[in-house]
Amino acid sequence: MAQPKRIAVLGSTGSIGRQALDVIRQFPDRFEVAALAAGRNTALFAEQVAAVRPRYAWAAARDSALDSALDVSGAAWLPTEEMALAPDVDIVLVGTAGAAGLMPTLNALRLGRPVAIANKEVLVMAGHIVRAAMREGGGELRPVDSEHSAIWQCLWGEESHAVRRVLLTASGGAFRDYDPAALAAVTPEQALNHPTWNMGPKITIDSASLMNKGMETIEAMWLFDVPMEKVDVVLHRESIVHSLVEFSDGSVKAQLGVPDMRLPIQCALAYPERMPEPPMPLLDLAKLGSLHFGTPDTHRFPCLRIAMEAGRQGGTVPAVMAAADEIAVERFMAHDIPFTAIPAVIEAVLSQHQRVDDPDLETVLGVDAWARQAARSAAVGVST
Amino acid sequence: MAQPKRIAVLGSTGSIGRQALDVIRQFPDRFEVAALAAGRNTALFAEQVAAVRPRYAWAAARDSALDSALDVSGAAWLPTEEMALAPDVDIVLVGTAGAAGLMPTLNALRLGRPVAIANKEVLVMAGHIVRAAMREGGGELRPVDSEHSAIWQCLWGEESHAVRRVLLTASGGAFRDYDPAALAAVTPEQALNHPTWNMGPKITIDSASLMNKGMETIEAMWLFDVPMEKVDVVLHRESIVHSLVEFSDGSVKAQLGVPDMRLPIQCALAYPERMPEPPMPLLDLAKLGSLHFGTPDTHRFPCLRIAMEAGRQGGTVPAVMAAADEIAVERFMAHDIPFTAIPAVIEAVLSQHQRVDDPDLETVLGVDAWARQAARSAAVGVST
Repeated sequence: MAQPKRIAVLGSTGSIGRQALDVIRQFPDRFEVAALAAGRNTALFAEQVAAVRPRYAWAAARDSALDSALDVSGAAWLPTEEMALAPDVDIVLVGTAGAAGLMPTLNALRLGRPVAIANKEVLVMAGHIVRAAMREGGGELRPVDSEHSAIWQCLWGEESHAVRRVLLTASGGAFRDYDPAALAAVTPEQALNHPTWNMGPKITIDSASLMNKGMETIEAMWLFDVPMEKVDVVLHRESIVHSLVEFSDGSVKAQLGVPDMRLPIQCALAYPERMPEPPMPLLDLAKLGSLHFGTPDTHRFPCLRIAMEAGRQGGTVPAVMAAADEIAVERFMAHDIPFTAIPAVIEAVLSQHQRVDDPDLETVLGVDAWARQAARSAAVGVST
Repeated sequence: MAQPKRIAVLGSTGSIGRQALDVIRQFPDRFEVAALAAGRNTALFAEQVAAVRPRYAWAAARDSALDSALDVSGAAWLPTEEMALAPDVDIVLVGTAGAAGLMPTLNALRLGRPVAIANKEVLVMAGHIVRAAMREGGGELRPVDSEHSAIWQCLWGEESHAVRRVLLTASGGAFRDYDPAALAAVTPEQALNHPTWNMGPKITIDSASLMNKGMETIEAMWLFDVPMEKVDVVLHRESIVHSLVEFSDGSVKAQLGVPDMRLPIQCALAYPERMPEPPMPLLDLAKLGSLHFGTPDTHRFPCLRIAMEAGRQGGTVPAVMAAADEIAVERFMAHDIPFTAIPAVIEAVLSQHQRVDDPDLETVLGVDAWARQAARSAAVGVST
């Protein structure tokens, strides 16, 4: 029996992090937690640290409960970018949202380590830097969301030059059947009611606007090293077909299953093996009866078109778009702007930006900060 | 550039053989015809021999047109079992129906050669002997029908012990929506009108009775080395999802495409590469709109149940079943028995047979001959 793989779980109090801990707990002979990192949910993080007793821990905030959990566990306090480099870590799972995932990802890849990545922003903002780190160190990115995991699984045993097209499925979000007037009137509370996946609030709003799917197209470019011309989106409301790959000879492979994030997490941690047990009920196609497909409506949901165009342009454009989206969603959640103003804010910011090609990290972080500020101003314009 | 692969096309005048020649002709830098063999369609075979100029040729019949084509081409007359052994053959494509495919298949596998196999009977009658030949010589079976090719493609890059279930799709045949009374009255002419695939008459009748699907479950056992407990069938009328594999972790992979036999033929000849061009129009899921799935009705179509049970029993039982089916279909085609009597004839023969486990080839051929005779008698009983 091989040694259990030692996992650093970054973002352990989030949706992906909690499910990753479930998977690791289920297979103690295959996986163990080497490190835990979280943001500001110190209460849950203290519980996790006390229960899991990782070698390393870090959080964006500390309180007395966390301090005593650290004492009990004997965990060493270590920043996430150093966790990624620790000698007793085999795989880094990046489940943190936003720019916080960037440095640990780059560090692990430069050291030749596998990174199980659930963080969209890292690839959207700095995909070219991430790929450079992979080339430099020989590290490997393993996708941890259902769509990219599906594509990845379809690519096992295939040659990358034989990929004609990767085809992401989109459930269509909470408002897929709303007309434009109804869309203008939706509330954050409605948007948070996603039909299939139970996720964090930011990603749920992005799912409803199709910005999440748009960012996934950019992620797909970097994960699978294909230009945007080879990335496409198909509407599929059942969320059973998690995505597809079309090959040069016209053959199409799809990965299917009952929706459960623990499957892509398992796949990313266990690769190249498959775990012996499913985390979810088995798919019963005959009982399901039918699967539906359609074309996403980029008139009602312009964020998908905006994101794919940003991916085509490249350079700093996707980073600007992602930062502007983050602020626009924040303003929507605060009831400051209507749902339909999210794309307007993003486009206003993009129209003020002059693209920089092949930006270094400093430039990316610079345009990120600028775009957030510009989006705040644009949102004020929209809300009045 | 590598040398073109030299293909022996056995059954070149049949549906698979003709399409294989199309594929080979389309990619002259990748493939060339080394040998052609056919049955009694000497007119078409003479044309093929004259056009393709293979090194070796053989047919079950000869006439003056074929003789002059052989003269023109300079092809050497060589029996198919020797073609499989010829030093200037790289891949043997077995597109012949029935027992004629057996010896070439065994010979090629024992020599460590890949066999692209479109012949159901070889695996149904003698799957254990074929697998023994593979073990002995290191040869490889590459499936050439859409369902098994789909499963094979889904298994690339996967470990065989991770297979939980292979799931064959079935269009349901020409009479999928007929009630029992209508089924009893169908004519051979109606049965030959298959909804999706354009195939030979025997296989089309077997498709309508679901015996074809049943035999495919037995083929799947031998091709993928799984017990019948791991083989299942799902109804899928669009014939877009060509089959699926469910893995140990619950993940399901499917292979999809616009139906065209040239794709599985291409895959089997080009493996492990994919050809650069599709032989058929690309799949447009959004335009297609929906895919449907259901459970096959083994009350109306008992042949599926009979075949899966024969596969479970193993030994000589599948060979007896296949031989009895061949005679029953022949009797139906001759308007001697009704469509619904096909399973009755097969079951009558099976009920008279005493299973022999792990039969040698002589025993298999013996029960084959016996079962044909028994089926002729059983058909007389049914037709009166």
